[in-house]
Amino acid sequence: MKILVTNDDGINAVGLARLAEAMAELGEVAVVAPDREMSAVGHALTLHHPLRASCVGERRFAVDGTPTDCVNLGIHSLLGFKPDLVVSGINRGGNLGDDVTYSGTVSAAMEATLMGIPAIAISLVTMNDGEHYRSAAQVALDLARHLIGNGLPVDTFLNVNVPDLPLEQIGKPLVTTQGKRRYEGTIVDKVDPRGRNYYWIGTADLRFQDIEGSDFHAVSRGHVSVTPLHLDLTNHSSMPKIASWFSG
Amino acid sequence: MKILVTNDDGINAVGLARLAEAMAELGEVAVVAPDREMSAVGHALTLHHPLRASCVGERRFAVDGTPTDCVNLGIHSLLGFKPDLVVSGINRGGNLGDDVTYSGTVSAAMEATLMGIPAIAISLVTMNDGEHYRSAAQVALDLARHLIGNGLPVDTFLNVNVPDLPLEQIGKPLVTTQGKRRYEGTIVDKVDPRGRNYYWIGTADLRFQDIEGSDFHAVSRGHVSVTPLHLDLTNHSSMPKIASWFSG
Repeated sequence: MKILVTNDDGINAVGLARLAEAMAELGEVAVVAPDREMSAVGHALTLHHPLRASCVGERRFAVDGTPTDCVNLGIHSLLGFKPDLVVSGINRGGNLGDDVTYSGTVSAAMEATLMGIPAIAISLVTMNDGEHYRSAAQVALDLARHLIGNGLPVDTFLNVNVPDLPLEQIGKPLVTTQGKRRYEGTIVDKVDPRGRNYYWIGTADLRFQDIEGSDFHAVSRGHVSVTPLHLDLTNHSSMPKIASWFSG
Repeated sequence: MKILVTNDDGINAVGLARLAEAMAELGEVAVVAPDREMSAVGHALTLHHPLRASCVGERRFAVDGTPTDCVNLGIHSLLGFKPDLVVSGINRGGNLGDDVTYSGTVSAAMEATLMGIPAIAISLVTMNDGEHYRSAAQVALDLARHLIGNGLPVDTFLNVNVPDLPLEQIGKPLVTTQGKRRYEGTIVDKVDPRGRNYYWIGTADLRFQDIEGSDFHAVSRGHVSVTPLHLDLTNHSSMPKIASWFSG
């Protein structure tokens, strides 16, 4: 089988290397990743200017675009084949709760799903550099085997978060819901050397609600969190109430 | 009341001007918008470099960032107040089906929702420049009045698509589900004047499935489509099946 590996931390990230090594146990691995860090770019697709791709090794490409660009360009042009599986990561830092909508790592898996390709996004939950990428790589390999054996529901992919612990200390995978976070926005407002104002968006206070069954709840108790995400954002249960606005 | 208006087509877009004019009937309008076109940037947030904001009129700012940046920076710094409503648009072109995850317009409304502020994303469904922004502006005003009177469910915002028709030819609003599109990716692969390859992502073939009750179904029959979107991407119904992978 053929596996495309990508990420949002860039082509030289440790997590990408560990993930590609692990996936090689399943088949032929190709890597298409951003040529620099591209975190928090969401599901951005570059439509308004051209992209460059450098071949930096055997079946290994660096693209001057977003993770979504990498999946799109990789599959439609660079690789010359449609992979059987796309795995995105291992991200340096968790992608939990509402953060998934900002995440380049998660969006790469979303892009694969839009193309009808099974996908996993995997992140190591750490606030610093992260030590246990090998743990997360083993988790990714185990999950990929489950996925290949069982398949996934239509338009659904897995968002996986792994505690930054030695493998033997990590609890079994729990299937979780996307948690809730409230962003306490902070803007740094300063003056540059030329006397002009600039602003820097910060996300100082990373607080998650400790909801039972959520991704954050599982990871904070040492378990692997496996959240099935899908592409339908419709709040179906709210539809009758909103329809009543127009029935008068 | 105070209303923040933003978009992804940029500060000089016609749709933004029409929307701000309409919203002025409800209260005090502030505009914070990208200084250039920023479509298809998804829910990208600029974390790795500073942002600039230019005051280009009374309560009117142009930011060198994404629509998500505009909402974040506007509310946390530039405006000095938390608006009662955020309206994003009027986008040149529909934001239907799976496209919502790429959309800067929709992501601006998502960002407001993350901050707990009611939000509407509104788009004029046109493949060219669009003629009937005033129709869409009137639709936005009517919907904003409904929203203020009735409120929205928690973590939910409205994604509104309006046919490019004179107001009197537009059918009543239908509450719809997010439709389905399959992307037929096309990459333009060419050689630049210096002999190096470049790639340009195209989305030539915009095909939607004509699913009854969907956003595309409503708009293609001349109705306003109102889709309640929420922030929870969890595919709840798939959880037991995936949990069974780990129960052995």
